[in-house]
Amino acid sequence: MTQAIHLPDHAAYQAAQQRQNTLTKPAGSLGVLEAVACRFAAWQGQVIPGSLQSAITVFAGDHGVTAEGVSAYPSIVTGEMVKNFASGGAAICVLARALSARLEVVDVGVLNPLPDLPIVHAKVASGTANLAIEPAMTLQQCQAALEAGRAAARRAVENGATLLIAGDMGIGNTTPSAALICRLAKQDVDLIVGRGTGIDDAGLANKRRVVQQALDRLPQQPLDGLEVLAELGGLEIAAMAGFYLEGAALGVPSLVDGFIASAAALAARAIDPAVANWLLASHCSEETGHRLALNALGLEPLVALGMRLGEGSGAATCVPLLQLAIKLHAEMATFAQAGVTEKD
Amino acid sequence: MTQAIHLPDHAAYQAAQQRQNTLTKPAGSLGVLEAVACRFAAWQGQVIPGSLQSAITVFAGDHGVTAEGVSAYPSIVTGEMVKNFASGGAAICVLARALSARLEVVDVGVLNPLPDLPIVHAKVASGTANLAIEPAMTLQQCQAALEAGRAAARRAVENGATLLIAGDMGIGNTTPSAALICRLAKQDVDLIVGRGTGIDDAGLANKRRVVQQALDRLPQQPLDGLEVLAELGGLEIAAMAGFYLEGAALGVPSLVDGFIASAAALAARAIDPAVANWLLASHCSEETGHRLALNALGLEPLVALGMRLGEGSGAATCVPLLQLAIKLHAEMATFAQAGVTEKD
Repeated sequence: MTQAIHLPDHAAYQAAQQRQNTLTKPAGSLGVLEAVACRFAAWQGQVIPGSLQSAITVFAGDHGVTAEGVSAYPSIVTGEMVKNFASGGAAICVLARALSARLEVVDVGVLNPLPDLPIVHAKVASGTANLAIEPAMTLQQCQAALEAGRAAARRAVENGATLLIAGDMGIGNTTPSAALICRLAKQDVDLIVGRGTGIDDAGLANKRRVVQQALDRLPQQPLDGLEVLAELGGLEIAAMAGFYLEGAALGVPSLVDGFIASAAALAARAIDPAVANWLLASHCSEETGHRLALNALGLEPLVALGMRLGEGSGAATCVPLLQLAIKLHAEMATFAQAGVTEKD
Repeated sequence: MTQAIHLPDHAAYQAAQQRQNTLTKPAGSLGVLEAVACRFAAWQGQVIPGSLQSAITVFAGDHGVTAEGVSAYPSIVTGEMVKNFASGGAAICVLARALSARLEVVDVGVLNPLPDLPIVHAKVASGTANLAIEPAMTLQQCQAALEAGRAAARRAVENGATLLIAGDMGIGNTTPSAALICRLAKQDVDLIVGRGTGIDDAGLANKRRVVQQALDRLPQQPLDGLEVLAELGGLEIAAMAGFYLEGAALGVPSLVDGFIASAAALAARAIDPAVANWLLASHCSEETGHRLALNALGLEPLVALGMRLGEGSGAATCVPLLQLAIKLHAEMATFAQAGVTEKD
């Protein structure tokens, strides 16, 4: 049984802030690195947080909405990329190795069978239904995908993770993500729908039409978080939401990746608002509308590197910045220790 | 005898760009990480650049202009912080350890004697003259400081560095830096002078007056780079300029830190424009005017983390991003290798 999400440790946060002001630097001169260290103090419940052990879980699933021609790549690429994850050639594999991070790949809904790959096989369905014309998932499928994500978070934490990253692989998944963001952040389609992996102007106009059609299809009465996620989401997106929720329940923060991850985070928050206290933004994606999704989450991205790859790659790229923030917080001398004169 | 600065290898740059377009990701989806990898290909003259070995040199010097009350800290802190560098407690020490980077500290102009510290003793003078009323350095002093920086770059490269970072320590040094940027980038004092380590509104008004007075003191006729540097610079700033120039001559790029480093880079470029091809921007400092200084250098910062500490800390913080960019470039599978279908 999943436990309730508790609040981060505010006393540890305040003590960490006080420590920052004693370190041998002008107050505030490490910028957001100071705030990052203090947030990890709160998450770990200690003034000086321990160095981070990252775990990356990439959830893969396909999307019925690709029948509408919303992606520059065919659905077969989802399974092909999962094979690429398994053989270590994808961007997230390179990053995980560089970070010494645990990397797990979970098939929650890939169209093609992937029986022999050394991944976690938790397929709920062979892709979603076409959300332009019907619910992407049944409530039961959506719950099963959420649980697959929760189970992945439990495995990561059992293996020592102190920082969680959810990545996505799913051709077409910027479309359900855009639909979720529009609905959950109350944003207009034109501001949120982008080019994904690289559609042209006609493709973009079509994608906007598809997302609007999906939004218009929904009943006018209020829907709860699970219902919205089932209507407009994807199996891997639901799993990511479950991953964030379980991480928060276990007291381990998640570093949110890009557009798809932010849609999943919004869905997680619609299911349990307390999850928001356990999320940290990483990068601002090039995908249109990501900034607005982060704003809706109340998150400020650390960097904007023009990335738009998914897989958790933007979040993974930011991990060294977090590690350095914590090391500075832990290892710098104080004015008193170093015998340095303080400000006039 | 210093050799001429040659151009980076354009053929290697183009070959690296071609390689990027074969890797298993939508073209361009790694954003600036792709461009970074290609630039290192050009600098190293090979399609797949080797992983980076960073060397950080912190140059320390004092400033006669502190007599004008331009800093929130007294000059004694420069020497105290050099001791902190020597004992490993400063931010840049923590970062250098985390990066396994060579760290060297060079006294080129600290006011107080530092005889027993395990640093490089290359003191040209015990601080500069007050640039508000007279040249900060004689031409001879300026040349000696440049040479101290050049020698440091040679030591770093002899020890295997493939990436150079110059850091600064010098109470009051945002004032000469602002003066250099105003003169060399043809910018107005109000746009460039900032609060440094943290002066109040009255202090800021005074600092603007001081910088304007220094600029007005200069003769109207054109001055060459060395003359401007001697008039308005600092000993550590001149050393940083020499460090960039020698690095470029040796074919090793420098990662430019913040406000003071950018002033030094502008001075280096005024001495030899070819140095610009061997500079990469790191962060955008919180210090007012840094963005304009980077614009004048034709550099785009990788990140903006709200840092304003100096010491090379912003540049050092960005090193892992460069390492990840190179690893992705080197280790990702191509579409052909992974058997992944390309874009429609």
